[in-house]
Amino acid sequence: MEPFIVAGVRLGVARAGIKYPDRRDLVVIEVAAGTQAAAVFTQNAFCAAPVIVARAHLAVTAPRYLVINTGNANAGTGVQGLTDAEATCRALAKQTGCRSEEVLPFSTGVIGEPLPVERLVAGLPAALASLQAEGWTEAAHGIMTTDTWPKWASQRLMLNGREVTVTGIAKGAGMICPNMATMLAFVATDAAVDQALLQHILNAAVADSFNAITVDGDTSTNDALVLLATGQSGATVPTQGEDYACFSAAVRAVCIELAQAIIRDGEGATKFITVQVEGGRDSAECRQVAYTIAHSPLVKTAFFAADPNWGRILAAVGRAGLTDLDLERVSIHLDEICIVCTGGRAPDYTEAQGQQVMARPDITIRVELGRGAATARIWTTDFSFDYVRINAEYRT
Amino acid sequence: MEPFIVAGVRLGVARAGIKYPDRRDLVVIEVAAGTQAAAVFTQNAFCAAPVIVARAHLAVTAPRYLVINTGNANAGTGVQGLTDAEATCRALAKQTGCRSEEVLPFSTGVIGEPLPVERLVAGLPAALASLQAEGWTEAAHGIMTTDTWPKWASQRLMLNGREVTVTGIAKGAGMICPNMATMLAFVATDAAVDQALLQHILNAAVADSFNAITVDGDTSTNDALVLLATGQSGATVPTQGEDYACFSAAVRAVCIELAQAIIRDGEGATKFITVQVEGGRDSAECRQVAYTIAHSPLVKTAFFAADPNWGRILAAVGRAGLTDLDLERVSIHLDEICIVCTGGRAPDYTEAQGQQVMARPDITIRVELGRGAATARIWTTDFSFDYVRINAEYRT
Repeated sequence: MEPFIVAGVRLGVARAGIKYPDRRDLVVIEVAAGTQAAAVFTQNAFCAAPVIVARAHLAVTAPRYLVINTGNANAGTGVQGLTDAEATCRALAKQTGCRSEEVLPFSTGVIGEPLPVERLVAGLPAALASLQAEGWTEAAHGIMTTDTWPKWASQRLMLNGREVTVTGIAKGAGMICPNMATMLAFVATDAAVDQALLQHILNAAVADSFNAITVDGDTSTNDALVLLATGQSGATVPTQGEDYACFSAAVRAVCIELAQAIIRDGEGATKFITVQVEGGRDSAECRQVAYTIAHSPLVKTAFFAADPNWGRILAAVGRAGLTDLDLERVSIHLDEICIVCTGGRAPDYTEAQGQQVMARPDITIRVELGRGAATARIWTTDFSFDYVRINAEYRT
Repeated sequence: MEPFIVAGVRLGVARAGIKYPDRRDLVVIEVAAGTQAAAVFTQNAFCAAPVIVARAHLAVTAPRYLVINTGNANAGTGVQGLTDAEATCRALAKQTGCRSEEVLPFSTGVIGEPLPVERLVAGLPAALASLQAEGWTEAAHGIMTTDTWPKWASQRLMLNGREVTVTGIAKGAGMICPNMATMLAFVATDAAVDQALLQHILNAAVADSFNAITVDGDTSTNDALVLLATGQSGATVPTQGEDYACFSAAVRAVCIELAQAIIRDGEGATKFITVQVEGGRDSAECRQVAYTIAHSPLVKTAFFAADPNWGRILAAVGRAGLTDLDLERVSIHLDEICIVCTGGRAPDYTEAQGQQVMARPDITIRVELGRGAATARIWTTDFSFDYVRINAEYRT
């Protein structure tokens, strides 16, 4: 399904030759005056120059333009990287008549190479010339790197009798273990939302979506997620009540759909794996167990092989670092099949059952810890030959 | 070099058909009366039945026999697993005339399948019949699973004018991220060492050897390392002074050689990578950074590709969770080449230099944190097609 347009948002794409010739690698997003913005960024200490600049600009004023390049992350580039990101903003500001602080820069691609800022700036007029409200799918293409398909999601709801839209795009397939946000995602709505409320809604949505996915445990230097509210629908989101709940749910649904799309397109992924941990003392320990399973190369290769080698899941639960774990109370299910209970193989479990489940493209690992009421749910992929191939060949 | 024999130790091997026919899969180690033993075991909460039984037996008395099977880990096997491990000890005790508590059982192989205890017990007479002081290399073969070569190490030193030997064997190639010990390792000396001192020396040696290696971050359920001191050389190790230091250094050297052999034989490994982190506030944070680098699938695949994609190392340092990391003070070297300083690419660094280093089979990543005097050093491998192949095919 094509994404719904969002009143007050236009998107344009250009081929700037950042890394490869003739590839859509430069995206500009324009938002109407009065738009509110909320954002979350990577917590990697080596965050990229555009992340630093975007954070600084957001602290000063709401944005009018977002500029995104692929092919170069402008990370690990020191002072020159900051200069280049600022130069990008200045160039776009000059061409559009806004202030430099009203431009937010985003970059994704290889780390540690100087941003080819001249080629980027030279591509801006073409991107601006192609700005259109229907530009969402083109923009979704324009932010792809190792992604194999463009990712968007769209929701419509009624607020105070007015139709409101929430539409987003995202990119990312590797170096995915977001900590506050994923690689790059941009979500916009035509609802009017107070900035503080917008940030609150975004933070809540991220916890259950982008902060609940992992491909390889590698948190990127460039993660950024921006939520833009243009207010052009005429409907305002209240701070509580049913309309607040409906709008938050729509933002959350778009974020989950985008986050899951990143996992389904995970580098080399052949399986979509949900890890559900229940019965923990708190959600932190549930997440700890879930991520230990999701990051285990042995668990991931077993899923690639469609081999019900459940001992590897059990071993991952055991090394997750939970104190006083009572093995007698732990159980593990693969979809509807109980494979482990009371510290060992479930009496009724048969290898044939395990093989049947492992053959499925979507599988849920459910771990019951039996020591509380907390839960956590994350999504991940298997680990295939193609993951190694893609990441061994990425630069060459 | 063949390992030196250790007075008071004999080793025997049999083909018991635990998992495969006609494979050396059962090892018995006999130690002289009066031998002291120290051991460290996995901290995986789902520790295997033989680990539980060996711990319990060691708490009661010093061992006379160790029995090790491959092909089956006897882990995730619940109460039946404990019964089977005890039955193994009883059978060996009966055939040798010792007490059941004087036997320590060890298992390695697939998790979650019942131990074929009848086949194991049926193989014991052949193992006992082959006991010999020169049995170290045969025993090193007998404990292999996915290892591609047998691993031993041997040191000789003089204590009080008497020659003392320290010899050890180990196995392990995958599910390697020991936490107190590695998969399986057995080290013996003919020095006389008080049990508490022996444990102290072992703990110190393990910290710098088996607890400093990782293949895939997956801590096994069956890790065990035993250090045996027969006293048959007539030399006694004192609790301090030069002889203490020399003996401890010999144990440490054997442990490091065995641990490094496990990494060099890591599943699918094409590179031996030393990760050296310096200038930390404490060794814990240095280890945290070192393991974040060593476990990063992106760093590991870049090394497999011999691609100096150092941005991935920088990103791993950045996500390691150190608070207040001052990027201006961080530098990263690959062997003698400085690749990162003051938060970005080193000014003199060239891609050609990086490629030259990455082509080497042994590479040191050195990270300077610039915020203290603590250090840590660990060893790891790259991540290759063969790692995926080996672990996708392991059970089939």
